[in-house]
Amino acid sequence: MVRLTIIGLGLIGGSLGLALKRAGLTNLEVAGFDIEWGVAPRARRNGVIDRDARDLESAVEGASLVVIATPISHVAKVLEAIAPLLGEQTVVTDTASTKRDIVHAAERLLPEGVSFVGGHPVAGKEHAGLDAADAALFDGRAWAVTPSVHATEKAIKTVENMIALAGAQPVLIDAAEHDSYMAALSHLPLVVSTALFSLAKSSSAWEDLAVLAGPGFRDITRLASTDPALSNDIVSTNRDNLLHWLDRMIEELRSARAMIADAEQGERLAAMFKSVQEARDAFIERPPVRKAPETEKERTSAGERFMSFMMGEYLMRGAKKAEEYIREREERR
Amino acid sequence: MVRLTIIGLGLIGGSLGLALKRAGLTNLEVAGFDIEWGVAPRARRNGVIDRDARDLESAVEGASLVVIATPISHVAKVLEAIAPLLGEQTVVTDTASTKRDIVHAAERLLPEGVSFVGGHPVAGKEHAGLDAADAALFDGRAWAVTPSVHATEKAIKTVENMIALAGAQPVLIDAAEHDSYMAALSHLPLVVSTALFSLAKSSSAWEDLAVLAGPGFRDITRLASTDPALSNDIVSTNRDNLLHWLDRMIEELRSARAMIADAEQGERLAAMFKSVQEARDAFIERPPVRKAPETEKERTSAGERFMSFMMGEYLMRGAKKAEEYIREREERR
Repeated sequence: MVRLTIIGLGLIGGSLGLALKRAGLTNLEVAGFDIEWGVAPRARRNGVIDRDARDLESAVEGASLVVIATPISHVAKVLEAIAPLLGEQTVVTDTASTKRDIVHAAERLLPEGVSFVGGHPVAGKEHAGLDAADAALFDGRAWAVTPSVHATEKAIKTVENMIALAGAQPVLIDAAEHDSYMAALSHLPLVVSTALFSLAKSSSAWEDLAVLAGPGFRDITRLASTDPALSNDIVSTNRDNLLHWLDRMIEELRSARAMIADAEQGERLAAMFKSVQEARDAFIERPPVRKAPETEKERTSAGERFMSFMMGEYLMRGAKKAEEYIREREERR
Repeated sequence: MVRLTIIGLGLIGGSLGLALKRAGLTNLEVAGFDIEWGVAPRARRNGVIDRDARDLESAVEGASLVVIATPISHVAKVLEAIAPLLGEQTVVTDTASTKRDIVHAAERLLPEGVSFVGGHPVAGKEHAGLDAADAALFDGRAWAVTPSVHATEKAIKTVENMIALAGAQPVLIDAAEHDSYMAALSHLPLVVSTALFSLAKSSSAWEDLAVLAGPGFRDITRLASTDPALSNDIVSTNRDNLLHWLDRMIEELRSARAMIADAEQGERLAAMFKSVQEARDAFIERPPVRKAPETEKERTSAGERFMSFMMGEYLMRGAKKAEEYIREREERR
């Protein structure tokens, strides 16, 4: 039996538990911990995890792979707290949506022999929390993988296999590059969406206006419903990249404004609308994200690869230690 | 038998046909015309309309209510073409997403005795055309009603009843006010969405970046897939309002940028994110749009009101004329 521990059982941690359960690996035990009282036992009762831990120490005990799925601003604190508790060659990953600061913190805080491989599943929902967890949340989605400089090849493969097992596509990328890309794809859209809603809401005619809001307005303001704690964490960990893209966006809007104001530029404006529409349609029709493993066979082979790495890890601990924690686990039941 | 004619059988015109069919009024005949060859016969074969017309003349002949569901830039041309063909007291409406210019054109072009009551269903889909038509497209949506100065109370009620029959909520509003509201709710979002996609696409790293695009990026750039002909029509018929809101948006982004750049303003930024998130959640949870008539009884009563107005119109034509066009219609079958 190999143990994987999820710390933080919200939408992402809970969905990961369900996705791993869906894969049906018989030799894998998923342990879970959440700082909010009562969440981990509920996750166990709902079949999201196999074992709920009362504290971080018992959560990571005997774990080959630890997944930190807390808010961004808690990841470094968790790394610091678990650092002295981790066995040699444990692999640690996370799911936070900014990566530079976290990879740096891991390099500073984790002991030698422990590999940190950052992760960011590009998936989400309007609703957060364990109750919104969904085994299919990651299906077909990209999941960025940002290893620290000390991470072993084997640790990277372990995390990539876990991602494939959860239905997503691992995308290996440098942490700094990741943050600059996400500023354009996610953090700028968050600020723009918030600004758009705020603007309409601040209108003196809002009450009348709101009655006429259609599906387009709802979609474009969806990100304005992002958990404000997450928005703050994103800004404070990706400020430089966000400012760069905000400046470019303001420039883009000023140039669009100039074209719109000048009726003589109608043809240029029409060409712009046409080329953007064609490019967006092409992006949607032929999305660059690879499909999730669709067949049973594909998923099984990801499972086999994952378990062979996890089991390798497991065997390295030596039979004695393995017996110890299996016995201990059974005593707790 | 009372006749309603739909001119333009795309997504909106086709969905209106299906929604009226769903209402199951036995005394209503829906005629349809489309400038594209073969579309109207296909609409008839698919049960979207009862009768396909070969030209505008036969389309509007004997119609009590004419719905122009063409692109914005064609509405005035259609009004001009049908003006000499309309019977006394015909009611004319449209479905275009800007209203000032069209209401003015109708006031200039239509003969005395014909009532123009502009309309704009705030509904849509990523895909256009008859094949995307959907009987439920308007369910629970707002549908703006912008009467011309000459429209009779009875004409306004007829259009409002048709809207209720299609499952939507009529919202009576001045045409100029409508255009200013829609600039904030729909036309500014269109330009912002287009600018966001264009910006990401123009990045030299787009190929790598696109792999990491998640559902948030897809939603916020959905409007960038708007038919470019519609985008151009919107800009050229609502330029002043759009420029006003674009200026406010640029100002809003500059002020967000200043807050983000200054780490000391973290608390103000956090308060902003929080208040916008709460307001957006409230807007989604308690949407100001009233529900569609949900029960059979509610829908039937809208149908009865609609038919009593249409029938009133019908009787006014006099029994002789009525007999004439019923006979004529039957000969054509």
